[in-house]
Amino acid sequence: MTGLAGIIAGDTAISTVGKESAGLTYRGYNITYLVDHANFESVAYLLLYNKLPAPEELNLYQKKLMSLRRLPEKLLILLKAIPQTANPMDVLRTGVSMLGILEPETPESIDKLVAILPVILLTWYQGQEVTNAQITTADYFLYGLNELRVKPSDPLFSKALDASLILYAEHEFNASTFAARITASTLSDVYSCITTAIGTLRGPLHGGANEEAMKLIQQFDEPDQVEAGIKRMLSEKKLIMGFGHRVYINGDPRSPIVKDLARQLSEKVGKQKLFAIAEIIENTMWTEKKIYPNLDFYSALVYHCIGIPTSFFTPLFVVSRITGWLAHVIEQRSNNKLIRPLANYIGPEPRQI
Amino acid sequence: MTGLAGIIAGDTAISTVGKESAGLTYRGYNITYLVDHANFESVAYLLLYNKLPAPEELNLYQKKLMSLRRLPEKLLILLKAIPQTANPMDVLRTGVSMLGILEPETPESIDKLVAILPVILLTWYQGQEVTNAQITTADYFLYGLNELRVKPSDPLFSKALDASLILYAEHEFNASTFAARITASTLSDVYSCITTAIGTLRGPLHGGANEEAMKLIQQFDEPDQVEAGIKRMLSEKKLIMGFGHRVYINGDPRSPIVKDLARQLSEKVGKQKLFAIAEIIENTMWTEKKIYPNLDFYSALVYHCIGIPTSFFTPLFVVSRITGWLAHVIEQRSNNKLIRPLANYIGPEPRQI
Repeated sequence: MTGLAGIIAGDTAISTVGKESAGLTYRGYNITYLVDHANFESVAYLLLYNKLPAPEELNLYQKKLMSLRRLPEKLLILLKAIPQTANPMDVLRTGVSMLGILEPETPESIDKLVAILPVILLTWYQGQEVTNAQITTADYFLYGLNELRVKPSDPLFSKALDASLILYAEHEFNASTFAARITASTLSDVYSCITTAIGTLRGPLHGGANEEAMKLIQQFDEPDQVEAGIKRMLSEKKLIMGFGHRVYINGDPRSPIVKDLARQLSEKVGKQKLFAIAEIIENTMWTEKKIYPNLDFYSALVYHCIGIPTSFFTPLFVVSRITGWLAHVIEQRSNNKLIRPLANYIGPEPRQI
Repeated sequence: MTGLAGIIAGDTAISTVGKESAGLTYRGYNITYLVDHANFESVAYLLLYNKLPAPEELNLYQKKLMSLRRLPEKLLILLKAIPQTANPMDVLRTGVSMLGILEPETPESIDKLVAILPVILLTWYQGQEVTNAQITTADYFLYGLNELRVKPSDPLFSKALDASLILYAEHEFNASTFAARITASTLSDVYSCITTAIGTLRGPLHGGANEEAMKLIQQFDEPDQVEAGIKRMLSEKKLIMGFGHRVYINGDPRSPIVKDLARQLSEKVGKQKLFAIAEIIENTMWTEKKIYPNLDFYSALVYHCIGIPTSFFTPLFVVSRITGWLAHVIEQRSNNKLIRPLANYIGPEPRQI
């Protein structure tokens, strides 16, 4: 099983991952620049329409997304029928699949999918349709999460969640994106492509890593237990989630950005001890294994400080990555060839009973 | 876009496709041998449990599959709520995704998925749960299809459908199977893997081809129109579905088997003219382009003669291929490595606004 490591499976003009001296760019824009100068909706527009929107274009696009936050009646009924014990990724996968039945693909489906994912998630979570007039996806999510709960929203929360959505939006031929491109390559519909991507992101070796990173951090009560604990896990060959990346050799360029946000948030909400624990994990992984944290590690802490339940970390990845997936579906369709590799046969020789 | 053509993406012990002098084998058994000596359930057992079952094992396995033809209450409600105008592939994709919520994966999920797909499809189609005591999948399907409709079943119908299910069961790293393996490679659950596969098979360049082949055959009213019609389509660069295959150079070994069944069935039901039309299409494609028919071409005619609606052709592919998909998920998990290729970047150089 090579896992296609190091194999170039096709062309893309959407992002660079680990390209020398470019770091991570979306359509040529460095992610640090985008976090400083754009928001999630303008990045969605950039990925899907291939330019950063002017202020008036962004305004119109945000209004459009707001207007698309509507669930068909039968999807609302379905979401209410799904038990609260369900895996939220299964809820998203099923919700998107059902939406594909109720609203078969049209050109509008692209923007609809960007708008609707947080609505599906929060409506199931709250047991009622979550409609509100928040302009940004980040604010809609924070509002919808807390509507029937406590915790007031905070500008730093909005900013951190928005930045995290930018950073998770796109990452070249990662497993979920590449799987979605295979689905697109048979000329299937966009809902099938996104259903594929959600189911693929769901695994702990992919999107599930941020949830696992949070569980890792929460294992420790005190910073002084961490170094020995991590060393023990390493000696027991346990997988430490949130570290390393197949493509980035010299560290994940997204990590310092979320780390800084995690530091600010942990101070704001009085969780400095958790931040200290995370930092010792990072340092121990470096001294022991020379492995850097990836985006998932400090993102977990960011979400936790904002008050997001751990089971929503991977679904938030979906809320963001939907934009990259859709950009790749569009790109695959624009110059399509069926993706169909070969296998090396290692089974039995021809036989009869 | 290379489509990974000619690239070996991993090992498999499940089937050979186009391996010199082996043709198509499932775990070493040639498909012609299996059509003559096995039925669909024994082939499912072979693929999933790595041996052809002895008669008593087959008997027990068929009883087990029969006992698993039960829908959870909430899935039944969902299926009844899905409009009859839906694409049946969307129904299967959504049904499997919902089943993954209601019955999260256990070791039994493998056999459950083999048993439940025709139940999902027919229950939606009939608007009520289709329960019956037919032993084989082919008979269950024929019974469920006709229960509220007309058309009595016929031994030749059962035999032909069963043979078709054997022939569609497994085909190495085709697009849907490879996509399912990517989903499996993140360690996601089996329902996500199968949801991926269904959405990928749905496209007209993959599973949808048998439906397109039927539409092609039905375009012609009389055999004497066919040759000129096909030549015209070729000169207009129209895609002729049901012909050619990326992997088989010297013809699809499954095609002669279904062609023979199509001939027998067309005589039985008095559709000799359609068979004659199909044969002229085949001959014209050969003289004009030197391209052979693939499995989809005569399978379309087999299904049509049995009285199966064209929109069920690709879903029947799912009912069969679920066995191959599951075998590949099990194989991927047994020696897993995340499937994550690279892309060749062809986008803009680093820029700022």
